[in-house]
Amino acid sequence: MARILDMISSPADLKVLTDDELAILASEIREQMISTTSRTGGHLAPSLGVVELVLACHSVLNCPKDKLVFDVGHQSYAHKLVTGRLEQFDTLRTFGGISGFTKPNESEYDQHPSGHASDSLSVALGLAMARDLRGSDEKIVSIIGDAALSGGMAFEALNQIGQVQTPMVVILNDNEMSIAKNVGALSSYLGRSRTSRSYTQTRDNIQSKLESTGRLGRGLVDVLRNMKDSIKQFIIPNEMLFEQLGLVCTAPLDGHNIPELKRTLEAVLESDVPVLMHVVTKKGAGYEPAEKNPEKFHGIAPFDIATGEVKSSGGGAPKYTSVFSQALLKEAEANQDIVAITAAMSSGTGLDAFAKQFPERFIDVGIAEEHAVGLASGLALGGKLPVVAIYSTFMQRAIDQLIINNALANTHAVFCLDRGGLVGDDGPTHHGMFDLTYTRMIPNMKVLAPSNEAQLVNGLHTALHLDGPVTLRYPRGEARGVEVPDEPEMLEVGKSITTREGDDVAILAFGRMVQEAEAAADMLAEEGISVRVVDMLWVKPMDEEAICKASLETKLVVTVEDNILAGGAGSGAMEVLTRRLVPSDRRPQFVMLGIPDEFVPQGKVPQLYHMLGIDAEGIADTVRRQLAAL
Amino acid sequence: MARILDMISSPADLKVLTDDELAILASEIREQMISTTSRTGGHLAPSLGVVELVLACHSVLNCPKDKLVFDVGHQSYAHKLVTGRLEQFDTLRTFGGISGFTKPNESEYDQHPSGHASDSLSVALGLAMARDLRGSDEKIVSIIGDAALSGGMAFEALNQIGQVQTPMVVILNDNEMSIAKNVGALSSYLGRSRTSRSYTQTRDNIQSKLESTGRLGRGLVDVLRNMKDSIKQFIIPNEMLFEQLGLVCTAPLDGHNIPELKRTLEAVLESDVPVLMHVVTKKGAGYEPAEKNPEKFHGIAPFDIATGEVKSSGGGAPKYTSVFSQALLKEAEANQDIVAITAAMSSGTGLDAFAKQFPERFIDVGIAEEHAVGLASGLALGGKLPVVAIYSTFMQRAIDQLIINNALANTHAVFCLDRGGLVGDDGPTHHGMFDLTYTRMIPNMKVLAPSNEAQLVNGLHTALHLDGPVTLRYPRGEARGVEVPDEPEMLEVGKSITTREGDDVAILAFGRMVQEAEAAADMLAEEGISVRVVDMLWVKPMDEEAICKASLETKLVVTVEDNILAGGAGSGAMEVLTRRLVPSDRRPQFVMLGIPDEFVPQGKVPQLYHMLGIDAEGIADTVRRQLAAL
Repeated sequence: MARILDMISSPADLKVLTDDELAILASEIREQMISTTSRTGGHLAPSLGVVELVLACHSVLNCPKDKLVFDVGHQSYAHKLVTGRLEQFDTLRTFGGISGFTKPNESEYDQHPSGHASDSLSVALGLAMARDLRGSDEKIVSIIGDAALSGGMAFEALNQIGQVQTPMVVILNDNEMSIAKNVGALSSYLGRSRTSRSYTQTRDNIQSKLESTGRLGRGLVDVLRNMKDSIKQFIIPNEMLFEQLGLVCTAPLDGHNIPELKRTLEAVLESDVPVLMHVVTKKGAGYEPAEKNPEKFHGIAPFDIATGEVKSSGGGAPKYTSVFSQALLKEAEANQDIVAITAAMSSGTGLDAFAKQFPERFIDVGIAEEHAVGLASGLALGGKLPVVAIYSTFMQRAIDQLIINNALANTHAVFCLDRGGLVGDDGPTHHGMFDLTYTRMIPNMKVLAPSNEAQLVNGLHTALHLDGPVTLRYPRGEARGVEVPDEPEMLEVGKSITTREGDDVAILAFGRMVQEAEAAADMLAEEGISVRVVDMLWVKPMDEEAICKASLETKLVVTVEDNILAGGAGSGAMEVLTRRLVPSDRRPQFVMLGIPDEFVPQGKVPQLYHMLGIDAEGIADTVRRQLAAL
Repeated sequence: MARILDMISSPADLKVLTDDELAILASEIREQMISTTSRTGGHLAPSLGVVELVLACHSVLNCPKDKLVFDVGHQSYAHKLVTGRLEQFDTLRTFGGISGFTKPNESEYDQHPSGHASDSLSVALGLAMARDLRGSDEKIVSIIGDAALSGGMAFEALNQIGQVQTPMVVILNDNEMSIAKNVGALSSYLGRSRTSRSYTQTRDNIQSKLESTGRLGRGLVDVLRNMKDSIKQFIIPNEMLFEQLGLVCTAPLDGHNIPELKRTLEAVLESDVPVLMHVVTKKGAGYEPAEKNPEKFHGIAPFDIATGEVKSSGGGAPKYTSVFSQALLKEAEANQDIVAITAAMSSGTGLDAFAKQFPERFIDVGIAEEHAVGLASGLALGGKLPVVAIYSTFMQRAIDQLIINNALANTHAVFCLDRGGLVGDDGPTHHGMFDLTYTRMIPNMKVLAPSNEAQLVNGLHTALHLDGPVTLRYPRGEARGVEVPDEPEMLEVGKSITTREGDDVAILAFGRMVQEAEAAADMLAEEGISVRVVDMLWVKPMDEEAICKASLETKLVVTVEDNILAGGAGSGAMEVLTRRLVPSDRRPQFVMLGIPDEFVPQGKVPQLYHMLGIDAEGIADTVRRQLAAL
């Protein structure tokens, strides 16, 4: 049977559909999303939760003239499917395919490169202010989850939205949980709002008010405004918080009722002040396994549709995250001072095990990286030993707190940057490709980039026994499969490990690149080229002796890192040589491999390595080419 | 007459003073602060405003066992004077002297290196959680201004404080204006709270409740809690916002009434839940010129006590900030799309002139750098041309927004980083010593570091006519005194300017260092050493030809920057050579001068340059030493 979905080439096509047809379309979209992500993996549960909401928005709005701004963008699959990307949808999150987030160069319907939480309100307010300055009349709507609202950036924007009072609609997609269970006073506040005895009553009330005003546009707002001093307490009983910040708020609406959503959105869009439209959705809605386990289906690998089970990736080595998770448990058993902090990523960072075993020493601050890192400094000043686990890309939000609150204070805290380097399918917003630069520039900071799971375990142990702030940076995905020591050992600070001897060429490799460098060395050995591979291990302080020896003893020095080249680890090695070599010293040819001055697209990590010339083959090619030119 | 102040060696000495004696002490402290800052300069108005509040805190608390955490710390002068630093107070903000902010290695009474707004709640919560884990019973109090509360980090912390519900006191120092006039919905909210008709009434009410409960400790909180469902609306009429976030709040208190502050603080310290103590103070209180013009006296240069007039610094060249201010006005006259954004620093960044002339195109977001930079991307996406002026050190708060919202989106926005490089008296929290590293690492970003005011004007003009994000980085203080062009000219992207010809040595200088490099070249010329000086101007893209030529044509290449060496501009030049030179190319000795791997203390900028060896003399010394070793 032909699908309605196949007939939707742009949102304009939605406007002719009846509510019943929209409901059928919602099912078709869900089927499509489940089918595609079962093969590609993806953020299924968030996207399932907002199908009706997205359809309602696009039925009412006139995009792309009107602007729909998604926070994080992991809930934008339905949006993609109705804005001309159905045919490419099966390429979701693949190399050259469509992005798992909104992306302006993919579609004029996408407003900004989303991926990092809590930024949509700033972008939307900017669009609204630009509109006002131009004197045009497009509508601005942003959709933000309740979890993202705890991010400081969102509050900063809300604070200004409440003041500027320009028309825009903030749709609060309240799904009671984001990636992990929500935390924070704001969350409790929303909980009270949802469960308030007057929720249903209120909804019905709003409904009838809306009906009584017909679709008179200004109606709802006028109704709300007029009610302010009389029965407001009844109509919007618990939204005082947002009201205090200057937004008119609707009572919580059923996020799966398309007619209700459309009616309300039409009404609030006529407001001449900012409105917060509180919508309650069910994460994972319409697919039982996701409804039952929304956290698992938040971002999921390819899975079996019937059972919801993730397809086995072939039982390789354990993931770095699990190795970290187990290692930290052991350390925490031995040291009562250890406190673990996550910013709404207990499962992603592997801290869920810690949370279970040491609930009193586990802190989830919500999506709030700045506070997470500031809190760590407070805990350290109070005599505790904080371990902060945050993805590399999200730590970009808290660089100032690393500098001022931790490095300048010289507090002993350990920053575990999971997903350091390229992450693969999630693409440019999620690659952790700046951390070696931004951690290395900070005085008092030590930076470790383990190249295998044994080093991660020993590195964590070492970091916990040093002074001052220490960053531990490790990649996403499977570790190398080396044996993990029963008892972790202390690593010598700033000491590298030479894993292959050789004197034609020296490859100074950082983190996951050691594996590629070794494979390159093995290839080259067969060609009679003798390659030394140095697992640098420490990005800061760097092993100056090893760098100088490589420079003095070989003809060609190659550095390899999965970080941006500008200011990265290779630059650090060059800085060492500049400081250390005297004029009479022999200078080798020096080559730096890494990520050039551009954002890296999505794709499988090996594909991306290959593209960047930092896989074994690429490294070997560089060595051959350079040697030939000597 | 002997001063009470001279008899205070620690806060314990305050406890024996009567309220009348404390009032006399407050006057003495004000006199001391006015007298010292009239010579050293400093944050006088903020510190004047909280004298009674600080005395009340230290009379009630038992520091250093109890913890008093200052947000920003520019209001900590009274705290310094009663915690054993009276004798050194005249060294305030001087090289080797005491800091203008709290600084743990200066005193055990200082909790954290303050200076960047909005971090105190995170630190305080960390101290409170550490206390709870240890099972000890110290009191935790933080003092945060109303303006700092708009920073997202403070909200993130508040959100968790409301949830954790551990005892701590957040003193909201509400002075109705911070550095500039406060903005945002939160500020209006506080305004309503202060001016509420029941303010005085409420205060009296609280007072009598307190008196009726004596000092029974838990009293106040019980009273507040019990009132919740009955007459709460009357008692704390407008504090619903914080109440919704889980904090018990006092009504606004008179921040200059020591007995009232002491009584209330004693009461709320007995609470077993977090309390927000709302204190209304007058910024600049007790010194008429500062009361009349608190913005001018927020951070002031040496001034005449009788008149309040700033002592003339001798009428040198205009300041970079003023040059920028005027240049932007001109550009904005010609281009209606230009919108200017500040984060609560309209005067400091020179945007006050813009605000006056183009109020509809001026946006002050409050202390909210993340949102400022996110908002810029929204405005740019909406077709406007945002110019965001933020001090280099505070832009550290918004690096992720530079990366994701602007560089990845490739929006055309201009980021004006005032106070790039060393700033002098404000010390390590305020030096802008990381920006060349953190901007240079970002793909799509262009980075300009003008070396004089003409270049700043031309650089701004150029930045406004390019595509994508552009950073303009210029120093604090006086420009060089060169003539500013009547009509700004376009600079060629990535093109340096050779300001001294020479072929023994090439100095590649960035920004303010060009001046020092030229002076060094002049010194060396007299010794017969021929020095080329290249004003690099562009940090990204860098002038590769000029770097290669320097390398091929001279014996010694020296880079000089007032940025951290790790990943800085010198590293960038090395990266160019690494990429460009072929094995047969001649290699010069290469030396990088800049800020080594440590935080830089406070002091006059020339003192600091000298200490770091990046003044003319230091550069010349390096050249002589290196040439001798060749």
